[in-house]
Amino acid sequence: MSSPIKTVGVIGAGVIGASWTALFLAKGLQVIVTDPAPGAGAKLRGYLQEYCSAVPNAMVAPAACLKNYTFVKDIEPYLGSLDMIQENGPERLDFKRRLFAHLDAKTPSHILIASSSSGLPSSKFVTECTNNPSRILIGHPFNPPHLVPLVEVVPHPGTSQDYVAAAYQFYKDLDKDPVIVNQETPGFIANRLQAAMCAEAYSLVTRGIVSAEDLDKTVTSGLGLRWALTGPIMTNTLGGGGDFTHFMDHLGPALKSWVDDMEQNKFDLGSEEQVDGLKKNVNGWTSQVDLKKVEGDRDVLLADLVKRKLDQTENK
Amino acid sequence: MSSPIKTVGVIGAGVIGASWTALFLAKGLQVIVTDPAPGAGAKLRGYLQEYCSAVPNAMVAPAACLKNYTFVKDIEPYLGSLDMIQENGPERLDFKRRLFAHLDAKTPSHILIASSSSGLPSSKFVTECTNNPSRILIGHPFNPPHLVPLVEVVPHPGTSQDYVAAAYQFYKDLDKDPVIVNQETPGFIANRLQAAMCAEAYSLVTRGIVSAEDLDKTVTSGLGLRWALTGPIMTNTLGGGGDFTHFMDHLGPALKSWVDDMEQNKFDLGSEEQVDGLKKNVNGWTSQVDLKKVEGDRDVLLADLVKRKLDQTENK
Repeated sequence: MSSPIKTVGVIGAGVIGASWTALFLAKGLQVIVTDPAPGAGAKLRGYLQEYCSAVPNAMVAPAACLKNYTFVKDIEPYLGSLDMIQENGPERLDFKRRLFAHLDAKTPSHILIASSSSGLPSSKFVTECTNNPSRILIGHPFNPPHLVPLVEVVPHPGTSQDYVAAAYQFYKDLDKDPVIVNQETPGFIANRLQAAMCAEAYSLVTRGIVSAEDLDKTVTSGLGLRWALTGPIMTNTLGGGGDFTHFMDHLGPALKSWVDDMEQNKFDLGSEEQVDGLKKNVNGWTSQVDLKKVEGDRDVLLADLVKRKLDQTENK
Repeated sequence: MSSPIKTVGVIGAGVIGASWTALFLAKGLQVIVTDPAPGAGAKLRGYLQEYCSAVPNAMVAPAACLKNYTFVKDIEPYLGSLDMIQENGPERLDFKRRLFAHLDAKTPSHILIASSSSGLPSSKFVTECTNNPSRILIGHPFNPPHLVPLVEVVPHPGTSQDYVAAAYQFYKDLDKDPVIVNQETPGFIANRLQAAMCAEAYSLVTRGIVSAEDLDKTVTSGLGLRWALTGPIMTNTLGGGGDFTHFMDHLGPALKSWVDDMEQNKFDLGSEEQVDGLKKNVNGWTSQVDLKKVEGDRDVLLADLVKRKLDQTENK
């Protein structure tokens, strides 16, 4: 297994790569970052100056963070000295196949290589790796990674359990909350759950049962408040007086009737007409909203909430 | 329209009725509460002693709250002096029909009457009201009402828009976050969205793709954190760089592929075998957990989060 990870290679410094870098630095790691885009180095510096200080429970002061990374146009000379790689390249299969074959060939064969890919399962792009593909897996963060703790750890069928465990521990040590996805499945877990709710949300708004704004409020002032603290299954369990069986016996038939009714009134994501109508409806609301302020306000409360949850867990 | 509401009648002092009472009192209202169950009065007192102080941004000290309510076995003599009723009786159609016919006949015909019913739409139980059924609607809270701001305001086809507006304003003045459901639909909004996500959650857990514990963590450490602050549609919009159209154009096809895959792998809520397997799976996790502590920790952070969101809105 890999020795403790001190130096991380970050491939790709877009939104996700930059946010990972802020997190790694704030938690005390050394980072080598590469990105071929023009101006990527300056953009990254600006990002880190703004966001390193926003990482909940940071262990390193922002000024020191800025000394602990190196931006390089060519990461080749550094590949031999990395302890772990977090890859955030474009979601193109041919690109990732070549990239991973190269990384696998040129890095020490014991180091963990994680891809932030949200769409491509790693089984699709390890096909040309001949050194040690068992140390490659998905470590899919939730945007922005420097604030939101979730990381979906998704092995491909050839990933070794030791590397699944190593990735879990690495992210956990950064105060992330990794979950293990046992099997590659389209959308992994979070995007599927999100899609399930969004599909019904689109249907309700399209049918005129609720406005887009009130649909969102139903979540931000109700469902989401609970789900930030207890997940859907624990929420069911507490709703059943501490007993999931009681919940299902009592509410299962109602749940079934709602799901059946949703099935009858399904939003058709394949219908251009329905999708266009939805866009118009939503844009009618969001065009009235100061989105920069919404996002800024959210990030303040999000960082605060993550910190409070961490503190509560640590005081257990 | 009704004059400003000073005195509320609460019918039914179970979990929901007691929590409404705590909220009404902490916000400075007078409350007349009735419940026929043996010991209901003492139980309510215990509840109010514990929870009035937990109401975010309370306007009345807990000791004063306890002076501002009257528990009565028979509310009959008070019906003429109420400014509004919040009903929380059993979810039985025959019972609610009789109760609402009686309340409609015996209260001043201008006052708002709201039912906390989560399952029965009010069109089903106003059928025997002959005085003024246009002032009757659903005001469905989210548990526990003294903490969670959401109230679903659901008119029946004969409810007057003036009373929809009055209910909206009444709840808003209590720092609740009412949403208007334009049309009676099974499960209203929140329970449908919840069911959509739970159905996929049950499927993923049953298929062994993720453990029940990690399924929940995907929400509490990811999706739910965002949804506590921005709803699904605003989250899509921000994910599209401030443009829902861009989001749909970019991610619509992926969404469709996930929804189609979920359809193929649907959990069958009507299958006793699947439901039994799920219960065993979930109970295997929750039986290891200190549920009282989970609930207590949640309520501390929930009250805190609601307060922070209120403060952020007020400082706008």
